[in-house]
Amino acid sequence: MRTLSNEVQAHIGETVTVEGWLHKKRLLGGLTFINVRDRRGLVQVVIKDKDEVEKLRGMQIGTVLEVSGTAVEEPRAPGGAELHDAKITVIVPVLDEPPIEIDKPLSHKSDNLDTLFDHRVVGLRNLQEQKIFKIRAAALRYFRDFLTQHEFTEINTPKLVGGAAEGGTEVFKLDYFGQEATLAQSPQLYKQIMVGVFERVFEIAPVFRAELSATTRHVSEVTMLDIEFGFVKNHEEVLDMVQNMVFYVLSKLYEEHGADLKSLNAPDLVLQEKFPRYTVAEIHELYTKGTGTDTTTEKDLTPDEEKWICEYAKKHDGCEAVFATEFPKETHKFYQMLNPEDDGETTLSADLLFRGVEISTAPMREYHHDKLVEQMQAKGVDPDAPGFKYYLQAFKHGLPPHGGCGFGIDRFVEKTIGLANIKEAILFPRDINRLTP
Amino acid sequence: MRTLSNEVQAHIGETVTVEGWLHKKRLLGGLTFINVRDRRGLVQVVIKDKDEVEKLRGMQIGTVLEVSGTAVEEPRAPGGAELHDAKITVIVPVLDEPPIEIDKPLSHKSDNLDTLFDHRVVGLRNLQEQKIFKIRAAALRYFRDFLTQHEFTEINTPKLVGGAAEGGTEVFKLDYFGQEATLAQSPQLYKQIMVGVFERVFEIAPVFRAELSATTRHVSEVTMLDIEFGFVKNHEEVLDMVQNMVFYVLSKLYEEHGADLKSLNAPDLVLQEKFPRYTVAEIHELYTKGTGTDTTTEKDLTPDEEKWICEYAKKHDGCEAVFATEFPKETHKFYQMLNPEDDGETTLSADLLFRGVEISTAPMREYHHDKLVEQMQAKGVDPDAPGFKYYLQAFKHGLPPHGGCGFGIDRFVEKTIGLANIKEAILFPRDINRLTP
Repeated sequence: MRTLSNEVQAHIGETVTVEGWLHKKRLLGGLTFINVRDRRGLVQVVIKDKDEVEKLRGMQIGTVLEVSGTAVEEPRAPGGAELHDAKITVIVPVLDEPPIEIDKPLSHKSDNLDTLFDHRVVGLRNLQEQKIFKIRAAALRYFRDFLTQHEFTEINTPKLVGGAAEGGTEVFKLDYFGQEATLAQSPQLYKQIMVGVFERVFEIAPVFRAELSATTRHVSEVTMLDIEFGFVKNHEEVLDMVQNMVFYVLSKLYEEHGADLKSLNAPDLVLQEKFPRYTVAEIHELYTKGTGTDTTTEKDLTPDEEKWICEYAKKHDGCEAVFATEFPKETHKFYQMLNPEDDGETTLSADLLFRGVEISTAPMREYHHDKLVEQMQAKGVDPDAPGFKYYLQAFKHGLPPHGGCGFGIDRFVEKTIGLANIKEAILFPRDINRLTP
Repeated sequence: MRTLSNEVQAHIGETVTVEGWLHKKRLLGGLTFINVRDRRGLVQVVIKDKDEVEKLRGMQIGTVLEVSGTAVEEPRAPGGAELHDAKITVIVPVLDEPPIEIDKPLSHKSDNLDTLFDHRVVGLRNLQEQKIFKIRAAALRYFRDFLTQHEFTEINTPKLVGGAAEGGTEVFKLDYFGQEATLAQSPQLYKQIMVGVFERVFEIAPVFRAELSATTRHVSEVTMLDIEFGFVKNHEEVLDMVQNMVFYVLSKLYEEHGADLKSLNAPDLVLQEKFPRYTVAEIHELYTKGTGTDTTTEKDLTPDEEKWICEYAKKHDGCEAVFATEFPKETHKFYQMLNPEDDGETTLSADLLFRGVEISTAPMREYHHDKLVEQMQAKGVDPDAPGFKYYLQAFKHGLPPHGGCGFGIDRFVEKTIGLANIKEAILFPRDINRLTP
């Protein structure tokens, strides 16, 4: 009967058997201490017996073990207990030394990233690395919980598509039984179609972008959360839903994974239930006044303004998540709605900024068929192209006012933990230089 | 303030406003009845007023409406209530007639499948179609609930990979910044690697197979559930976990979605907590005895045996899910474990059969590094190929005894509901002839 690492303390005085990996080994005053790692954490084992100590000689980190011993209270050990008089059985021997040390935090410095990822298969066994992906898995769960509670239906849309989803250029192309197919860059068109079916839909799935840039922000395979919902009265309602979702997920993460976040040096969370909302014009003004650098003639937000407004909102509104609204028409995408209140000088689109960067864009969509066709044509997008023909069918046969957002899960995890590079939030990242492991 | 369709009955005597799509329209003895569809279902509205009747003239199905009226009890209406004295406001007009009727069950006959999928964008608004995908979304949720309860960590593994994942041939290839990449056919190698990190992992994600066959079973993009877990004592433990998961998900589906399953003509569920387990040799014998057709010299199960043993288990064991175990070595894949108890004459692999077909394969893996390399070489798989080099690293540095299974979600939904074709369980299916919508 296997006892898991965090259950040992409930069996003080009893003989228990743990199973796991040899995680650490050290000699201390004639005694040998080992740490055994299982899915719940570490167990400390103290070895005195000569035959048992002999077994440990040359035993490599990673060796799969069964260890029986007496559970003894020990406040300094992980979980407050350790095993004494231990008997060690090797389940799977390991002959090679690990290519990377896993019992202390791995270096994530950008000049060591190649080492980090070349040894990813073993390096992920590091407890600090594990925490990143435990937090990521929890975030996925909390997003889904919120969306299910709010009657969003989960959908799976195709990743092999007949044309570039949004008319972009950075697409991967492949031969599909003699036709050209592309890999979906986003489920944008499909999720809007599905508003006509379920009103409220979401999907968490990979999307693919042939990003030619090698930066801390660019990867070619991204895990996206996409949500879309209908029968909204106005753009504010779209922002409310996104805000409530993000508030729920971040609060839950800091509540349930506070210790892990702290040990990863994540920043403290400074959040309000209502995220402040500033128009792009207001941000230009505030920034100009605050920094002395005039951005009032800028159209889009500059990267420095994104950083600055997050700091400003953190101080001024007690909230480090902030919406930038009413983007100028120069940033307009064909499927977004132009602001009817200013004759289309601005768009009903907003960026959600968090800790200095945009983590999501949350627009209202243009839902009138003929207006949408006009906007496509104005952007040089062919409404008769195969992908768009079906997309427009949904509008022709009635789509209500709707909006939504796309969330890069990798980016969200990076920013929540405070990692320096998006790739650190991905198990096996893909970029222009990396297709393995 | 919007009232949802199933909330109308809670407001008898009050004026309420519903929003949704015009779903059906009919004249009955001078009165006009319409059904308005929202995300919860239908509301019946009775129209007498001449001006309001006039508005409905020529109004197309799909028109997005706001309807205010008095909630009146009416046992024959959906939800037990309908709206009287209604005032109709068009939110989004629709000018075109729908290309497919959505207020009665759509034909899923195989000779009509092209029509079904050509009009998928509108056809999915049919309530019967919706039920399929509501059940699918619920199945995904129940799988995840079970796995989370059992301490499986959700992972996202790359779909762009450096080599054919399992050495197969039916792979899609693409140019990845000058190198050749393939689309993942399965997360097999990555999920085994991740057992070394989290012990228990799962992923639900698309996989891609360049299936040249055009049948009711073949699609080129599949949503797969993959699970893998370590520290198992034997193959039985792997089967127990798979069995408990499937029992949980099927029971929940029939409990929570019984009415929808019934209205889709799904078969009644005949299940036991413990699924019967027969070796392939036993099935050959039982089948030979039962049918008079001798299959005792066959190696693999024949499709007819798969059907037959499900029927047999349903009658004999009161369970229509059944494991076929101990497959002969001729079916062996390099990552599966050969049975140590019969010198490798059989494998520690099992198929889970349900309603006549295999819905999952659940093997123990070979976890000894050197033996695994031997098995790769015996199958002509190059252990030094880029994808496999990293895979083998995980074994070199210690992987415990482990097993798992892969589940085609599409197939699972098809068989649960009793659909005739796997494509009917997919929103926008992809096959050799279809890349749209």
